Amino acid sequence: MYIEHISSPADVKRLNTAQLTLMAQEIRTLLTHKLSIHGGHCGPNLGMVEATIALHRVFDSPTDKIVFDVSHQSYVHKMLTGRVGAFLSEAHYDDVSGYTEPSESDHDHFIIGHTSTSVSLAGGLAKGRDLRGEHHNVIAVIGDGSLSGGEALEGLDWAAELGTNFIIVVNDNQMSIAENHGGLYDNLRQLRETRGACSNNLFRAMGLDYVYVDEGNDIDSLTEAFQKVKDTDHPVVVHINTLKGKGYAPAEADKERWHWTMPFDVETGELKHTFTDEDYNDLTAAHLLERMAGDKTVCAITAGTPGVWGWTPERRKAAGRQYVDVGIAEEHAVAMASGMAKAGSKPVFGVCSSFLQRTYDQVAQDLCINDNPATLLVLWASIASMTDVTHLCHYDIPLLSGIPNLVYLAPTNRDEYLAMLDWSLDYREHPVAIRVPVGPTRPAMRPVPSDFSSLNTYEVTHRGSEVAILALGGFYGLGEEVRQALALKGINATLINPRYISGIDQPLFDNLLSDHRLFVTLEDGALDGGWGEKVARHLGPTNAKVRCYGARKGFVDRYDVDEYLTVNRLKSHLIVEDILADL
Amino acid sequence: MYIEHISSPADVKRLNTAQLTLMAQEIRTLLTHKLSIHGGHCGPNLGMVEATIALHRVFDSPTDKIVFDVSHQSYVHKMLTGRVGAFLSEAHYDDVSGYTEPSESDHDHFIIGHTSTSVSLAGGLAKGRDLRGEHHNVIAVIGDGSLSGGEALEGLDWAAELGTNFIIVVNDNQMSIAENHGGLYDNLRQLRETRGACSNNLFRAMGLDYVYVDEGNDIDSLTEAFQKVKDTDHPVVVHINTLKGKGYAPAEADKERWHWTMPFDVETGELKHTFTDEDYNDLTAAHLLERMAGDKTVCAITAGTPGVWGWTPERRKAAGRQYVDVGIAEEHAVAMASGMAKAGSKPVFGVCSSFLQRTYDQVAQDLCINDNPATLLVLWASIASMTDVTHLCHYDIPLLSGIPNLVYLAPTNRDEYLAMLDWSLDYREHPVAIRVPVGPTRPAMRPVPSDFSSLNTYEVTHRGSEVAILALGGFYGLGEEVRQALALKGINATLINPRYISGIDQPLFDNLLSDHRLFVTLEDGALDGGWGEKVARHLGPTNAKVRCYGARKGFVDRYDVDEYLTVNRLKSHLIVEDILADL
Repeated sequence: MYIEHISSPADVKRLNTAQLTLMAQEIRTLLTHKLSIHGGHCGPNLGMVEATIALHRVFDSPTDKIVFDVSHQSYVHKMLTGRVGAFLSEAHYDDVSGYTEPSESDHDHFIIGHTSTSVSLAGGLAKGRDLRGEHHNVIAVIGDGSLSGGEALEGLDWAAELGTNFIIVVNDNQMSIAENHGGLYDNLRQLRETRGACSNNLFRAMGLDYVYVDEGNDIDSLTEAFQKVKDTDHPVVVHINTLKGKGYAPAEADKERWHWTMPFDVETGELKHTFTDEDYNDLTAAHLLERMAGDKTVCAITAGTPGVWGWTPERRKAAGRQYVDVGIAEEHAVAMASGMAKAGSKPVFGVCSSFLQRTYDQVAQDLCINDNPATLLVLWASIASMTDVTHLCHYDIPLLSGIPNLVYLAPTNRDEYLAMLDWSLDYREHPVAIRVPVGPTRPAMRPVPSDFSSLNTYEVTHRGSEVAILALGGFYGLGEEVRQALALKGINATLINPRYISGIDQPLFDNLLSDHRLFVTLEDGALDGGWGEKVARHLGPTNAKVRCYGARKGFVDRYDVDEYLTVNRLKSHLIVEDILADL
Repeated sequence: MYIEHISSPADVKRLNTAQLTLMAQEIRTLLTHKLSIHGGHCGPNLGMVEATIALHRVFDSPTDKIVFDVSHQSYVHKMLTGRVGAFLSEAHYDDVSGYTEPSESDHDHFIIGHTSTSVSLAGGLAKGRDLRGEHHNVIAVIGDGSLSGGEALEGLDWAAELGTNFIIVVNDNQMSIAENHGGLYDNLRQLRETRGACSNNLFRAMGLDYVYVDEGNDIDSLTEAFQKVKDTDHPVVVHINTLKGKGYAPAEADKERWHWTMPFDVETGELKHTFTDEDYNDLTAAHLLERMAGDKTVCAITAGTPGVWGWTPERRKAAGRQYVDVGIAEEHAVAMASGMAKAGSKPVFGVCSSFLQRTYDQVAQDLCINDNPATLLVLWASIASMTDVTHLCHYDIPLLSGIPNLVYLAPTNRDEYLAMLDWSLDYREHPVAIRVPVGPTRPAMRPVPSDFSSLNTYEVTHRGSEVAILALGGFYGLGEEVRQALALKGINATLINPRYISGIDQPLFDNLLSDHRLFVTLEDGALDGGWGEKVARHLGPTNAKVRCYGARKGFVDRYDVDEYLTVNRLKSHLIVEDILADL
């Protein structure tokens, strides 16, 4: 194998095209094997094998700096920059992260996991280079799916003004995670069909020079194009036409399914483990589809991530024009939802907690100042959900709960969630966000109301005294555990399902203060700026004590969830220990 | 006068071109007169007089829906939709806001004050219309300066997929607030120079139909173009070439100065009141310019708002390539700053608190996860700064203070601010944000350190007992007032300058807990998710009481600052009253 002997890009440069072509095969075999055991991003990496080889053949990384957008397609880059060991043997699979990581290698310049950032980040490297009087190539590699994101478009527009060396490789595989959406993709199609000659050209319209490579999986074609733009004195786009999933038949055939995969059988492509439990994501799409049938103004909106909340191709088809994928464009999605609600329809924008971060201003300005009754579903919001530092789903409560007018709800079970979702569709007073529970669904063990318009009314599920446990949303079960453990110690604690993240139930606190001296808040998210702090502020002037539990400040990466919960004392026995010490 | 008799767009439709042309003159006279007394957005409105008349001549508002981007150019629209009274007599000037406002009129559909949102909001109205089976025109009016914002570009890209009636009027006056920046502006120039015929066309590249109007200040040309696109069955851009500030010579001559103005003398164009006190904005640009001379890697970045932090045309010129205006593209600005810091240069991005909101994800992901040492200057961050609901500068502390790695500093005076700014330029450990004080500068009354790298070390400026007043940044003066008032009551309170918004000084609290039983936090911003809540959480498990002062949750619009401070009990006598009741 050639790939085993690649310890740096210098080794790539020593091989001829025939050898590199063989190496591309080897890389695909290693990638497919690792993914089949480990899971990860499949299609994006398989499609970028030749382009990554050609980049390292032509450019001199790390002096020349390559920045990969989203960086979920950087596995091949890792193999060619001293980290092939993490792809050769299962024992070392976890030696590298799934994204670029400067602590692993000087060939990685940023930790990147959100889309559409590469042009701006690399543009900054280029501007910084110019200020320091240095000379080297700066290359951004961005997939077509990321192009629709506002930050990428801002970066492209700005790039024209840089006026010095800057190379933007657009990896056009005709796919986002699902199919592409947006007018610019039709332009990419025109450019592919005319082999780059079409006068209608988004990149030229933004003031950038432009080169087209039709054979984006051919090492020599790519090498030639990269050599042509190497050491350019101005910004230039290199548009390469690649095949997502190339070399693994199932991934070529069903690009959406194979964008990211769990472990699978290489022969059949079938997942090694299948999940049959009902989950909240699947439940959501199924339920909305039912609601759509009865109300033609109900409309599901996604920003390029239909799969994360159950919108399979079949369901998308069934929803018809009541389903809108805006492409990776979260800002637009929120503003559009506000407009739709204003027009009297019932938009539901579902978005992962981590990607919701891209829409703070739109939620505040476009939606909440206007007080339009759209529904936001905040998905995967839990410490136990995504554990890559770029995908943490901890921060939605600090982000949303301080925005006036927004009603932010935390259901604790399946029935309560659906009741809240149904209620939000008909509620016309305010925008509503729902923190969708994570994992297998749990049925309600208590009656669930159908009307939540009496805002900030917490549910007291057990009235005791001395200690009140306020257990928010997904942590309600933890609260119940703590209550039971305290009961065994002879303490009859009150247990509360707060339901409303965005407000305080003042009358309830007034009542509880008469016979409680310790209030414990549990939330499945960041402590700083979170809901527990609102409780702590509210009770600050009283004689009661407050303890807030959640994730302490700090970025964490690829953590063991159980260990992280323990470190944050988010275990019932640790919480009970603290409570006993406080009393 | 014709304009006096316009009570709705129906009245506009009754006038012929000659009469409308005379009315345009009247409108300009009224606008200039009101602005000379009241202040407001000048150039944007003067340039849009004819286009607004033509819109209301052709379309049937409010059935047809017109959405103005930023809406600072909506004064003429207000005059033509039943609100001319607010422009006829000084007594009624404040009857309308400076932005579109649905509570004023059915002709206004959204409260809008941030840029680049109109295409998405109007797109939502169009999609909502389609779902409800209605038929009317939806029109977004967006200035060229707003086009560079990511949300607008996302919206344009998406619009092509709508496939039904949607009209996007691009008001090209060749200006942002200052000069335009970004490659797309060169494309607009090409389009103007070829009267729309150039094959290089950003809008067509995004999949949109396109119409060009060269005489964007000619009512008949505009009428003809709007009639042509009225009731279109697909999205179409109408690119109109207008003159910013048209009809008022000083505003035509110096477009940047006259974008927004304080009251002025109509004859001379001179401001009625001039401000000679040194302010923090002016100080900042002057200081950075000095630092740039000694260090060629120091670079100021603005996102289209140089004037808000002292970057006059002269200073911009002097800074040369050490000054970058990215256009309205805050997301790009933050990510670029991260890249520049990574490349070893010293970027300083200055941004108003309100517009900082557009960059949460970039601050968290592009900058802070990567821990690159860029400097962010958060400008105008105060309850007393901008009082329009769309421009509130209350929310930066909740937004930034929970993001790991970021050091967020709150200087209390001129010298401390400059020391922090200088320190941040040389500090290489973490990104630093500084909450720049607002108003006239105040000198230090205490020695100021030059090194702030011992993070989260609060300054105790007076050590007393019983009560500790933690007075953050701009509210330090208020804290001093409270301390002095308490002293008169025989209470020797401790006064603290916390300096660090992003962390808690745990050893100090441990020390103070021995002889303090009430802690009072004062912050010039929103309470929810703010810094005081962190203190409340930290002290929650202790026997101490905590009272947090700041702005209570709720959107407020055009408020009287003094009244708002009183309502929030942000007055020393009210705080003292509360403290005495607590003790």
